[in-house]
Amino acid sequence: MIQKGDITRQLILEHATALASQVGLEGLSFGRLAEDLDLSKSGLFAHFKSLQGLQMKVLEHAAERFTETVIRPALKAPRGEPRLRAIFDRWRRWPKESRMAGGCFFVAAATELDDRPGPARDLLVSQQKDWLETLAGVVRSAIAEGHFHRRVDPEQFVYELYGLMLAYHYSVRLLNDPKADRRAETAFESLMQRAKA
Amino acid sequence: MIQKGDITRQLILEHATALASQVGLEGLSFGRLAEDLDLSKSGLFAHFKSLQGLQMKVLEHAAERFTETVIRPALKAPRGEPRLRAIFDRWRRWPKESRMAGGCFFVAAATELDDRPGPARDLLVSQQKDWLETLAGVVRSAIAEGHFHRRVDPEQFVYELYGLMLAYHYSVRLLNDPKADRRAETAFESLMQRAKA
Repeated sequence: MIQKGDITRQLILEHATALASQVGLEGLSFGRLAEDLDLSKSGLFAHFKSLQGLQMKVLEHAAERFTETVIRPALKAPRGEPRLRAIFDRWRRWPKESRMAGGCFFVAAATELDDRPGPARDLLVSQQKDWLETLAGVVRSAIAEGHFHRRVDPEQFVYELYGLMLAYHYSVRLLNDPKADRRAETAFESLMQRAKA
Repeated sequence: MIQKGDITRQLILEHATALASQVGLEGLSFGRLAEDLDLSKSGLFAHFKSLQGLQMKVLEHAAERFTETVIRPALKAPRGEPRLRAIFDRWRRWPKESRMAGGCFFVAAATELDDRPGPARDLLVSQQKDWLETLAGVVRSAIAEGHFHRRVDPEQFVYELYGLMLAYHYSVRLLNDPKADRRAETAFESLMQRAKA
């Protein structure tokens, strides 16, 4: 049975994650959350113990959302090339579908935490490495299925795929470039064609 | 003749830019700068009028540094492919050579300002568009010199180049990936080979 406390907790994390995508994880505060959600500050403390505790839960929450929105549905596509295409489509739509005002939560977190050693950074790095490994695994399956050439280097492929997604984020979010989608698709097709067996 | 005031101003901007690369432009404060530099807060106000005034000057200062460190020396290389290679080398080394603790100033600023409308964001967008146009111009010169194929789309080339630089920044700064340089070089060579006439 779902408890009322669980629902409240989900709502808090949902709001805190969207807020962090705008103001950063360091910009979160119990005062602001209490005000936005009309909850008591002491109740929020009881939930999360400390600001760092909240930041960690927000990172976990964002990763769960990413898994639900991007990874899990894409893994239903057939192994290899179709799965990689499903990932590309869903990943590209993720900042919009996650309804985070500040765009991709993880791009914001990566830039913010890269020079802040501590448990939040460690968690983010470990999440990002998991994601890169998942991607490399899908590239490997495309090789195994005979969709990609055996000479393809999965890690290099993932590096270039990551780059075109970062450029897409930058073109949409900062430059409002109307050609951003076409640029990302062209770059992705070029990457796919080069990898084809 | 260089005035004492000019030197002080340069030192303030140098420090503020390095600080902003870590704590963000919104993280700058006259109090912190006064403390770090052992100057009076009122003197800093007199220099910059407002926090927004300081942020604009910091953006301008960072762009001047980028021009001096990356663009101007690279433009001394022969037109076309050699110039593009010089840009790639200097651009990649820029975060280190600029001695900014927080890595590339502009990657940090782009993520921070993308959802903060106002004069600082407008200035950053205009600076970034100038840089993308400079890059597209160098690609065009590589086509004109016969180094690149006439079918190369300069804007698409720049999009992909930007992506591999963003992936490089992410690999170095967040993941501390020892293979980051090799990955960036491989991606760059692949981009160059595809463009070759």
